[in-house]
Amino acid sequence: MKAYTHGGDILTAKMGFQGEIVDFSANLNPLGMPESVRRAAAAAVKGAVHYPDPLCRVLTEGIARRDGVEREWVLCGNGAADLIFRLAFALRPKRALVTAPTFSEYQEAMEAAGSEVVYHRLTPDNDFNLTDAVLEDLDGRLEMAFFCTPNNPTGQPIARGLMERILERCAGRGIRLVVDECFLALSDSGESGGLAGYVKSYPNLLLLRAFTKCYAMPGLRLGYCITSDTGLLDRLSRCAQPWSVSAPAQAAGVAALQEPLHPLLARQLIEVERRWLTGELTGLGLRVFPSAANYLLFQRAGVTDLRERLLKRGILIRSCANYVGLTEDYYRIAIRLRGENERLVRALKEVL
Amino acid sequence: MKAYTHGGDILTAKMGFQGEIVDFSANLNPLGMPESVRRAAAAAVKGAVHYPDPLCRVLTEGIARRDGVEREWVLCGNGAADLIFRLAFALRPKRALVTAPTFSEYQEAMEAAGSEVVYHRLTPDNDFNLTDAVLEDLDGRLEMAFFCTPNNPTGQPIARGLMERILERCAGRGIRLVVDECFLALSDSGESGGLAGYVKSYPNLLLLRAFTKCYAMPGLRLGYCITSDTGLLDRLSRCAQPWSVSAPAQAAGVAALQEPLHPLLARQLIEVERRWLTGELTGLGLRVFPSAANYLLFQRAGVTDLRERLLKRGILIRSCANYVGLTEDYYRIAIRLRGENERLVRALKEVL
Repeated sequence: MKAYTHGGDILTAKMGFQGEIVDFSANLNPLGMPESVRRAAAAAVKGAVHYPDPLCRVLTEGIARRDGVEREWVLCGNGAADLIFRLAFALRPKRALVTAPTFSEYQEAMEAAGSEVVYHRLTPDNDFNLTDAVLEDLDGRLEMAFFCTPNNPTGQPIARGLMERILERCAGRGIRLVVDECFLALSDSGESGGLAGYVKSYPNLLLLRAFTKCYAMPGLRLGYCITSDTGLLDRLSRCAQPWSVSAPAQAAGVAALQEPLHPLLARQLIEVERRWLTGELTGLGLRVFPSAANYLLFQRAGVTDLRERLLKRGILIRSCANYVGLTEDYYRIAIRLRGENERLVRALKEVL
Repeated sequence: MKAYTHGGDILTAKMGFQGEIVDFSANLNPLGMPESVRRAAAAAVKGAVHYPDPLCRVLTEGIARRDGVEREWVLCGNGAADLIFRLAFALRPKRALVTAPTFSEYQEAMEAAGSEVVYHRLTPDNDFNLTDAVLEDLDGRLEMAFFCTPNNPTGQPIARGLMERILERCAGRGIRLVVDECFLALSDSGESGGLAGYVKSYPNLLLLRAFTKCYAMPGLRLGYCITSDTGLLDRLSRCAQPWSVSAPAQAAGVAALQEPLHPLLARQLIEVERRWLTGELTGLGLRVFPSAANYLLFQRAGVTDLRERLLKRGILIRSCANYVGLTEDYYRIAIRLRGENERLVRALKEVL
């Protein structure tokens, strides 16, 4: 079976630590799931004696209204990751570009569909920022390009001017541009930093968004994509069963749309905590990379077993050893609440 | 967007009828969802602040024990339909055989993956039974063949002797044999009529099973497949995101495994009700096809608007107009509880 390569694997972690584990390995809203969302999803279980609405009508309508796009441009999936695989199988691009490091499912999906993956390497020398150098790599032999903003695991957003040059370049060269904005609502710019306003003019643009991180509901599975290329949405809907999105996930999404303050409040808290954590971790001799997101990437040169050391103290962090473009001494942590962050810092002091 | 072609679309039906609708269009356990399953899924929503176990460890272990197969032979999915699409994209067979009529997602998935679909036509002359004639169609140009037992929407199981000849034939000719047993536990034979005992000897055999119908939980999405070809399971796991099965679905499945009597009690009830309904419908001049399943196929020659007529009375049935191999005057109904079945018969009397 395919090895699991992501954060959030609490069950495996529990095999290594008998006790309560604080999970810094999954990048979720530190405020947790809103009570209204939890109640809506739990209540929807009763209605799950019926098939879920295959067209996610109520949810799609609400998403379109919130994100300021046409309803016909939105397609929901079983988490954003579901849509990445559907994209891969619907389009089967000969060649696709992904940055390194980034979320590994772009590459996994491309390879599952038989596509060749080309890497654009980001470098620690400039804090893993995407630069104009990427434009040269967006050549005519590519059929697809994936960007994540802010990038996972590095935390850097793509500057607006550069993003516009990427958009133009991809449009001109017939490259399908996939921009993953799943962490956007928890990052400093909020949704306003997103590309929803470009979707109409750039039919080659597809945005990935999710409820998973903002509303801390990864166990429910709910993501969506936005593109004005309705022909592509039709192909994506044909590359999966009609009932991808469960009834609890649809209900949770509809309830989450009624809680716009939830990610907003989290953002304010994250900014403060991120600054505090950056200071503390830097003080411990870790190289912390600047981040605009709800997570931090850091390196401790030569230390490759920090995850294991911390797990013995009930703290789960994400080793970045399996990211293309990072080495075994890179780690990622989610920004959590102050008490939890203090616990992490204490544990780090003990193990370093 | 792809048109929706299945039963259970309550939301659309409600646009046509203002009031409570009795849904005979989805083939679910008439006893509904066990209370223990509902409670487990609702409780799991709280834990959905974590990612679901990507390997469905507890659930897979339980399924393997119940079904008498190795744990390594089981892979769970977001409903059995999810696994049909993964199969299509993982193997991309040049040519696949499906019976007509049958569940349309085999064909949809094959076509989405670019496969050519070859039909083996079943005929009303022998009540849509699969016969030895199918063996001739299982020729060396096929790479895959789909069978559903009991077949949806016709209700006929595949006779054991014929199934064994199909197995041999497919093994000899290198054809991947997919047998959908999703309705088996609610049919007269129960699970004992299934092919789990053949999986070890026939690595080309893959069984599809689900919790959806037996435990009336279609809104939660949980199905699985069984094959001793672990290489194939690895490929299937690579053709999807790691978190296909939600936390509520996993919890519901684990709880359902503790309720083995639920489908058994339903079977006894279904047998009685099916006999009663067959008599009543036949008395109304409908041609009812013999069924061993929890649903009945019937025809009323020339009457193509029976679904609409019944919907005006708050009864939703499945028009079979869009099944390859059936005409517009075929309909399918689920077997429900006596009071509901009586309501269906009364409504039919009124509209015919």
